[in-house]
Amino acid sequence: MISLADAYHVVAATVPLYVTMILAYVSVKWWKIFSPDQCSGINKFVAKFSIPLLSFQIISSNNIYKMSLKLMYADFVQKLLAFLVLIAITKISGRGGLKWIVTGLSLTALPNTLILGIPLMKAMYKGEAVVLLAQVIFLQSMIWYNLLLFLYELDAVKTRPVPPSQGSGETETAHEVQAKREEDNEPRTKRRMKVLPILLTVGKKLIRNPNTYATLMGFIWSSIRFRWGLHMPEVVSQSIEILSNGGLGMAMFSLGLFMASQSSIIACGPRMAMVAIGLKVVVGPALMALASLVIGLRDTLFKVAVVQAALPQGIVPFVFAKEYDVHPAVLSTAILLGMLIALPVELAFYFLLAI
Amino acid sequence: MISLADAYHVVAATVPLYVTMILAYVSVKWWKIFSPDQCSGINKFVAKFSIPLLSFQIISSNNIYKMSLKLMYADFVQKLLAFLVLIAITKISGRGGLKWIVTGLSLTALPNTLILGIPLMKAMYKGEAVVLLAQVIFLQSMIWYNLLLFLYELDAVKTRPVPPSQGSGETETAHEVQAKREEDNEPRTKRRMKVLPILLTVGKKLIRNPNTYATLMGFIWSSIRFRWGLHMPEVVSQSIEILSNGGLGMAMFSLGLFMASQSSIIACGPRMAMVAIGLKVVVGPALMALASLVIGLRDTLFKVAVVQAALPQGIVPFVFAKEYDVHPAVLSTAILLGMLIALPVELAFYFLLAI
Repeated sequence: MISLADAYHVVAATVPLYVTMILAYVSVKWWKIFSPDQCSGINKFVAKFSIPLLSFQIISSNNIYKMSLKLMYADFVQKLLAFLVLIAITKISGRGGLKWIVTGLSLTALPNTLILGIPLMKAMYKGEAVVLLAQVIFLQSMIWYNLLLFLYELDAVKTRPVPPSQGSGETETAHEVQAKREEDNEPRTKRRMKVLPILLTVGKKLIRNPNTYATLMGFIWSSIRFRWGLHMPEVVSQSIEILSNGGLGMAMFSLGLFMASQSSIIACGPRMAMVAIGLKVVVGPALMALASLVIGLRDTLFKVAVVQAALPQGIVPFVFAKEYDVHPAVLSTAILLGMLIALPVELAFYFLLAI
Repeated sequence: MISLADAYHVVAATVPLYVTMILAYVSVKWWKIFSPDQCSGINKFVAKFSIPLLSFQIISSNNIYKMSLKLMYADFVQKLLAFLVLIAITKISGRGGLKWIVTGLSLTALPNTLILGIPLMKAMYKGEAVVLLAQVIFLQSMIWYNLLLFLYELDAVKTRPVPPSQGSGETETAHEVQAKREEDNEPRTKRRMKVLPILLTVGKKLIRNPNTYATLMGFIWSSIRFRWGLHMPEVVSQSIEILSNGGLGMAMFSLGLFMASQSSIIACGPRMAMVAIGLKVVVGPALMALASLVIGLRDTLFKVAVVQAALPQGIVPFVFAKEYDVHPAVLSTAILLGMLIALPVELAFYFLLAI
């Protein structure tokens, strides 16, 4: 049972994120401290330094030799199902394309496991759940964020000639129209010819992305440290921590800066917001429950898997979306609304699963 | 005696600062990640958010009811002596003015007590020294940084019509010339007439500075918490920590960004660098030793007072200097060179005082 003290811990873990976000929002909207270019400088700092370092820390602190295989399989199956569902929706509706598939994948299957998940799980299912959740976080950083980056780069190569971070809202719309036209008119044969050069360009871009290195090195270090019981030299660990410590705060700050640049807090409009929340709170957990049943997860493992899937939208996908300018407004709205309804939603899932 | 392990702890505390700085330097100089405007956005973030929050944490965690009065007096006397010496130098040489007095004060009397001081003192004089150093840090944040801000604002009001952060190197020189001319030609009577409006403008500016509030609230909270043994609500403390945690790293990053914008790492030229290091390593500790003797500090108290005065240039004064565009190159050089020679200098003082 969740005690009042547990609920307070959850609130205490959530409110600071809001405070940071509101601070950034107010500093642009009212105080006019940062210009748009300065805001994008801070966002760039978060995308290129804070998040790769955080990723490294999470990946390298997870014991890869002691992971729940069932949880891993369920996580894979959920993402696969989400991917298939999203492709089906875009095909049936005849709208969308890669941009919407990536955004939908973030909404459905990439929740805020680190900041909100850890305190919530601890309050609900105690220590055991935290170890399991850490594995989900590991997979997120190790596999899914890199897949996300791959898809973003793929989209960038396919649809625009300029580097991703330089595109604005207007050009995006133009690109989308162009992308749609391409999809409608071009034969599939001509497309396949272009696959290799596209993959090469994407590969080149990923090689230049600090997150790629952070992930790889985190994995290598994890496999060394837990095999031979080694510790990182103090100098190295402190060099990483000095910047990664502020990572979450900076990511929230960057989110607030972005929201201030929008005309409305529900930046993507109410209809899209409803779709986003639906994907987040209904489709995501439902697919996870299905995947968990298929794989045969039981008891706490099952509950943790489903409850974590209902957590609000993660912040890292938003930072990427902002960096590549692919529907950041949808993700920022999903984060904001998701966090507002997080506690009641999670409690509802908790009691539903306790029956 | 300092053991090899202690020396390693000191190195482990210093190297990450360099790593962060070099990362920022390389990201501008080689990778061209940040534009100049984006760099100033990050510096602004540090000046307006990270440092005020850090100040609040330091001030509020110091027990104001259990401070060494002798150490406080010695600290005051050292700053007063430094101020008098600097005024004398500018009068005798006929060069300088308020800009150089402020810069000289930073170099002589505002060392890096927090980042370098704590691990160094712990290695040299164990736990007792850390408590004493925390009081010096408290006075720095509480009194001296605010005095510094006051002097910077005073200088800004006196010498330039534009807001401080918008001035460039060229206009600064023009202003200096103008300031010098004013000092030479204007009668003292006319000056006194202007004092009240100047103080009003400075006051108005300080009221808009987040550091003022951080200091005040830190002091109030410290006086409440240590009187009644209260704890801050988890929500509030975590809201502060989420941004202040990354503060030191961000400050070092900002320093690296600035250095990348300079033509040379010894940005102020070799002669000025020698003067800066002289003020830092010789004049500062000498004045502190004198002040400590006058007040009657003995044993560990005396040693801590002198050794901390020889620590490299602090980072906060650099951030302010950058924000107000008052000789930031001198301070950045002093930080860089100071950190390079920090360990040998501190060890020299340690052995000198042990005789």
